[in-house]
Amino acid sequence: MDAPITVLAGGVGAARFLRGLVQVVDPVRVTAICNVGDDFEWNGLAVSPDIDTVLYTLAGLEGEFGWGVRGDTHTVLGEMEALGEAPWFRIGDRDLATHLWRTARLRAGEPLSAVTAGLAQARGIASTVLPVTDEAHPTRVLTDAGELAFQEYFVARRASDTVTGFRFPGAPAARPAPGVLKAIEGAAAVLLAPSNPFVSIGALLEVPGVRRALKTTQAPRVAVSPIVGNAAIKGPAADMLRALRHEVSALGVARLYAGLVDCFVLDTVDAALAPAVEALGMRTHVTDTMMTTDARKAELAREVLHAAGVAAGEARSA
Amino acid sequence: MDAPITVLAGGVGAARFLRGLVQVVDPVRVTAICNVGDDFEWNGLAVSPDIDTVLYTLAGLEGEFGWGVRGDTHTVLGEMEALGEAPWFRIGDRDLATHLWRTARLRAGEPLSAVTAGLAQARGIASTVLPVTDEAHPTRVLTDAGELAFQEYFVARRASDTVTGFRFPGAPAARPAPGVLKAIEGAAAVLLAPSNPFVSIGALLEVPGVRRALKTTQAPRVAVSPIVGNAAIKGPAADMLRALRHEVSALGVARLYAGLVDCFVLDTVDAALAPAVEALGMRTHVTDTMMTTDARKAELAREVLHAAGVAAGEARSA
Repeated sequence: MDAPITVLAGGVGAARFLRGLVQVVDPVRVTAICNVGDDFEWNGLAVSPDIDTVLYTLAGLEGEFGWGVRGDTHTVLGEMEALGEAPWFRIGDRDLATHLWRTARLRAGEPLSAVTAGLAQARGIASTVLPVTDEAHPTRVLTDAGELAFQEYFVARRASDTVTGFRFPGAPAARPAPGVLKAIEGAAAVLLAPSNPFVSIGALLEVPGVRRALKTTQAPRVAVSPIVGNAAIKGPAADMLRALRHEVSALGVARLYAGLVDCFVLDTVDAALAPAVEALGMRTHVTDTMMTTDARKAELAREVLHAAGVAAGEARSA
Repeated sequence: MDAPITVLAGGVGAARFLRGLVQVVDPVRVTAICNVGDDFEWNGLAVSPDIDTVLYTLAGLEGEFGWGVRGDTHTVLGEMEALGEAPWFRIGDRDLATHLWRTARLRAGEPLSAVTAGLAQARGIASTVLPVTDEAHPTRVLTDAGELAFQEYFVARRASDTVTGFRFPGAPAARPAPGVLKAIEGAAAVLLAPSNPFVSIGALLEVPGVRRALKTTQAPRVAVSPIVGNAAIKGPAADMLRALRHEVSALGVARLYAGLVDCFVLDTVDAALAPAVEALGMRTHVTDTMMTTDARKAELAREVLHAAGVAAGEARSA
């Protein structure tokens, strides 16, 4: 088999990118290494939002806003509300089946990587979807309102607090999940998805050995900017850059990736930033990065593979 | 407040009896002490079938066959099946909310009795619903196919194995839940619902202190036969009586309750058994025990209260 095309992945942006990638290379070659920093427990159930977003999107089931299951019902949630609960995290009925499935297996002692592989198989996904680690590796968000769990910051408090930093208390004891280091070291290309550089890609890289593998791999490494113009395509990346006194632009992200990537993909609206990015010691590739349709997702994937020097096949129908 | 009318309760039969009882006495006076021997874990969730049947029935929500929620949907279950699961225990979406609610609170350290009180309150139930114990107290069924968990015997294997006995491994360490002993010792009447004498009432009585409280209470004690003619109204009671070489009749049940009750309520079809039952040292009361409508549930409750010497109010509309 050809060496894998490995994608370091957060949530919605990464999932959309992966959806394009599997249209232009054999899905079997694609390995997604997923952030688990957002994972949390919901009424006793283990929820892995980034993994699920990647799985649902690769299965073509993703909801309207990129997460959950499209057209899902909320009967269970409605009944919990009837019991006087006001769940701060809305989970649909079909989505809930995933969490029940995962939780039962984790409780039975299966590692998250095996459970995730089982979910991918059950969903008919040919690509490899790996959690970056099987250990608990939560992202803690330091804010002016105190230290918060990621979902507390992001969902319950709607990312309204000023971020002052991050803490990864599980990192020292975390080990890369089986296959993670090999997928980076032996890749045909390592692609950093257009995900949050702090709480998605950054959290991934905190797992001991992962950053080093990315630094030392012989594979071409290409990052796609999650910032277009001066805004994040999705999520709190722009706010975090601002709060942490980085430049709120693709250049601000590129600086975080200096020494980690060989090429940085900029949106056409940011073409003027290319010289400054290149001054950081990386090539640039300028293209349309807005993945508004499946065709444009495939086109971005093709451009990124081109930037990595990997041949893409014909776009297949999704 | 008047002394409680305390009911030792299994599942469907007990729930229907309780539904009648709250029509003829102030529901606030009614205390149900529920079997927990059937409790099990379903995909990581804590399920208490007898407690739930009692709660749903008292709330007027019970499903067509007496358990689950009437008209419930099965979206989550369908999605689990799409993931390749074949759950042997079918749980509906609204029912699932109860289990999520319970599981989250148990995991947070609340005892089952507090969780059950919370569910009863959330469902608008004025009566007191107590688990017999907060500890794990599973009923193990000894059969010709080996020792089985109760739900494995009853649901997964459809009660098709020959029963040779029971084991209650949690009993030695179990303590009566708060309020249980007082509800028996200080009752205006203790009523043994028409439930299985082995795995419902019998399991209850295995919790240290409960049998003794029933033996020594000053309250009148009245049991309603779960066997009418030579068949159980519901469940495997008749099969168990047969397999364990008891007489398969109300008399067979009465023998199990000798020394524990003052009066035994027989169905009219079993009137001829009254002398033999009375020879066991208990009074008998013969009436129609088939609770086919809410009105007949109320009528049975009124008869049972009469047999216990407790005045019932006018039947209120359900």
